[in-house]
Amino acid sequence: MSDSADTTDASEAADPAAAPDAYEALLDRARRWNAVSSASGVLSWDQQVMMPEGGTPARSKQLSVLSSLQHDLLTAPETGELLAELADADLTAEQSAAVREIRRQYERADAVPRDLVERISEASTEALGAWEQAKAADDFEAFAPHLERNVELKREYAAHIDPDRDPYAVLFEEYEPCLPLERAEAVLEELRETLVPLLDAIRASDTDLAGDTFEGSFATETQEELAREALDRLGYDFDRGRLDVSSHPFTSGNQFDCRITTRFDESDPLSALGSTIHEFGHALYTLGLPDEQYGTPLGEPRDLSVHESQSRLWENHVGRSRAFWDHFLPTFQDRFPSTADASVGDAYEAVNQVHPDNLIRVEADELTYHLHILVRFEIERDLIRGDLDVADVPETWNDLYERYLGVRPETDAEGCLQDIHWSHGNFGYFPTYSLGSAMAAQLYAAAEADVAAMDGPSLDERIAAGEFDALHDWLAENVHRHGSRYETNELVKRATGEDFSAAAFTDYVESKYGELYDVSV
Amino acid sequence: MSDSADTTDASEAADPAAAPDAYEALLDRARRWNAVSSASGVLSWDQQVMMPEGGTPARSKQLSVLSSLQHDLLTAPETGELLAELADADLTAEQSAAVREIRRQYERADAVPRDLVERISEASTEALGAWEQAKAADDFEAFAPHLERNVELKREYAAHIDPDRDPYAVLFEEYEPCLPLERAEAVLEELRETLVPLLDAIRASDTDLAGDTFEGSFATETQEELAREALDRLGYDFDRGRLDVSSHPFTSGNQFDCRITTRFDESDPLSALGSTIHEFGHALYTLGLPDEQYGTPLGEPRDLSVHESQSRLWENHVGRSRAFWDHFLPTFQDRFPSTADASVGDAYEAVNQVHPDNLIRVEADELTYHLHILVRFEIERDLIRGDLDVADVPETWNDLYERYLGVRPETDAEGCLQDIHWSHGNFGYFPTYSLGSAMAAQLYAAAEADVAAMDGPSLDERIAAGEFDALHDWLAENVHRHGSRYETNELVKRATGEDFSAAAFTDYVESKYGELYDVSV
Repeated sequence: MSDSADTTDASEAADPAAAPDAYEALLDRARRWNAVSSASGVLSWDQQVMMPEGGTPARSKQLSVLSSLQHDLLTAPETGELLAELADADLTAEQSAAVREIRRQYERADAVPRDLVERISEASTEALGAWEQAKAADDFEAFAPHLERNVELKREYAAHIDPDRDPYAVLFEEYEPCLPLERAEAVLEELRETLVPLLDAIRASDTDLAGDTFEGSFATETQEELAREALDRLGYDFDRGRLDVSSHPFTSGNQFDCRITTRFDESDPLSALGSTIHEFGHALYTLGLPDEQYGTPLGEPRDLSVHESQSRLWENHVGRSRAFWDHFLPTFQDRFPSTADASVGDAYEAVNQVHPDNLIRVEADELTYHLHILVRFEIERDLIRGDLDVADVPETWNDLYERYLGVRPETDAEGCLQDIHWSHGNFGYFPTYSLGSAMAAQLYAAAEADVAAMDGPSLDERIAAGEFDALHDWLAENVHRHGSRYETNELVKRATGEDFSAAAFTDYVESKYGELYDVSV
Repeated sequence: MSDSADTTDASEAADPAAAPDAYEALLDRARRWNAVSSASGVLSWDQQVMMPEGGTPARSKQLSVLSSLQHDLLTAPETGELLAELADADLTAEQSAAVREIRRQYERADAVPRDLVERISEASTEALGAWEQAKAADDFEAFAPHLERNVELKREYAAHIDPDRDPYAVLFEEYEPCLPLERAEAVLEELRETLVPLLDAIRASDTDLAGDTFEGSFATETQEELAREALDRLGYDFDRGRLDVSSHPFTSGNQFDCRITTRFDESDPLSALGSTIHEFGHALYTLGLPDEQYGTPLGEPRDLSVHESQSRLWENHVGRSRAFWDHFLPTFQDRFPSTADASVGDAYEAVNQVHPDNLIRVEADELTYHLHILVRFEIERDLIRGDLDVADVPETWNDLYERYLGVRPETDAEGCLQDIHWSHGNFGYFPTYSLGSAMAAQLYAAAEADVAAMDGPSLDERIAAGEFDALHDWLAENVHRHGSRYETNELVKRATGEDFSAAAFTDYVESKYGELYDVSV
């Protein structure tokens, strides 16, 4: 599959000398607003990792001014004029792709009045405070008016972009501009149809996985050394990155400087390791974007599901594989001699335990995670479409948990108040997590097949030997180097030969968890 | 003296409700460009302290775009229109001061063509590379054309601002807009007339100060703990700051978040401690600017000499005092038991040793430092005025070192190639270091007198007891809180009752070093 991509790309390669002046001028403008965005990224990283707490007033002002300057650069009349000039220009496929991406950003930003953007920002600041209090007090009523307001404002926002379309589809495009909602919904539907019966079977299974292998106390300094060693083995380039600690793990940066954060829990060394590997996947994608395209759409990542596919591929398909633990367990045991008796099988079982009774998304395992997402997806979609009242959210939430996960939250704090996203007004974001997992499985299966077709060991055997180059190369070739060149489904199809679907993911979980729990679905 | 300042301020206090709309609009604009500048400051701090080395290309682009956006905001027609509208407006003294500061920034930025600014920036990037190589190879000839070009470009720059004035005076105003060069030259002249004979006398003196008290190896981790402890004792607010390591110590930030860096030398624990205290002085000034004026001239520091007066006051008048070592030596000895036998007198002598044979500015002591500066000041002034050819710089440099310091460099690497400033084209910067020292002495003497007039212990006795509040309060009241409200000499005069001069400094060094070296001048 990488072959066909190569051939096509060569024939499409842009001759920079032949690019119309308007194209170069447009890209120069894009480089400027992306430099501002990228500067804001550094300020945000600093705020979460380095800034002393007193710094907030100055930082808020800096970020708000940069955000408005970025918006001004994007929506300046010059941008519109250059886009108009390029509408009928003779462009290479690559140039057309860059213009397509910029045009979409411009049209969306231009469609929404500045005043509405500011009202949304103010409402979400207020909602955030209200949500924190409501969650602490388990008081949904206190949060409800803010949620109501966020829903209204975001419906208004969607109507400015396109009053004739499903507002949820429009909002989903904030995060997934190049993946039609219909395809996304089909993938989510497939996940539900596979996971609900699989989870039922696991719940009914007699199999107990080795869950106590990594119990005890694990010094955070040693965990940090281990995280650095894992990053080093996986191939993280510390000349273009850093590892730090923050309260929520995240990745931030560009192809020259992409930084990871993690957090450590003394009682759970697998959590920090897993989240470090997850963030490594994000960083590897960003660092794999072409240097020379920094600041243009061809040097920017495709959207959230693709980014998430990269983090989850490394977290789940590598970090939760038997092969990885074949390789990494001795290192782990060197650092933590109290685990010296654990076998690779024990480690493999420990990192893949399913917890059907867990109510909290961020603590969910690889399998139940998507049922948590489905609940949120259905609720936010119906809220935005006007098919569900805010007042009915708690009951609907609890009913859906019971239906999909077999557990019912007893409080809203551990129910519909657990996530920050809706207080930010981020409707349409949740599905990208699950879409990323499905895409990860599809990409990983294709990588396995392509490596199997080469001379030498299988991908699994390479990972067991601590050799990650073949996987790096495959991802660089088929995903990273393309930036936003292809729309999402085309990117997946070029990489895997198939349209994006949940098929590879459902095969993967049925086979893996079927074996682990001795069940068949 | 603080009394008179108070009275005047109260009578001048601006009533915000009475401020003309144009004034508020102008301040809003200033807040925007200062937010951009302050964002660039965070990016620069990150670049020097946190950024992985690969990050340079993206960071350069971010900084260059922010710099051009800041310039655009400052020089936008709207800024000029608001200033014109305010030219005859009825403003309070405080409002007038803010407008005066913005007007000067605007007029300077507006006078210089953007193209020249870019040529200067490119030339200095090239000169920087050439200087690094020339210094390493001790090859002044290789650097000379770049220095020549920087001189020409900066003369051109000065001519755009005012073709009829001394170009060096115009360039000096980049760093000291509110201190006339004549007054600065008078201060420098006084320094030379005091220091050259004083140094001669010291060189001829038989007195040997205790120089080996702090010889040995001092672990950098322990030095860092000591630096943090010193900052804590002095009153650095870690909720609004941080201490980190960088290759050159610096301070960066605003009143909400002002960070210090230092560097450690295993063989010289006094160097890191001294530079940490120096940077603390800078940070205390910045953190003492009024919160509510963030981003306006009333919340920005007065210029380089005033900033340097704050760092040198703490570094020299506090950190090099016998009183400070009375207080701090036990702490030092707790951390470094190998120094347990040292007396306060030994420590005091060690931090105040004069090294007449030293050729390197950044390694100079409190006293000879200014002779290093005088050499540079005279050379750069004559270069810019066209009274000295670039080709003659090395010989002139060496002659002046012989005349002022009694030593002659044997190579240009340890002579006129030692500093980075001229490769950046920063002509007019060097004098601010010495002006800052002279101002520090004048302010400190006034603070001593004001504290002596209060009930309770003298300033010296307070410092010996580790009590720094009285000094903090005096500086906050007389310097920090004013921002750029007053021009430099007025600020000094209000704080000390006297015009700015070198008198307090010459008294200070003649008395201190006369006693230390048993000489009288």
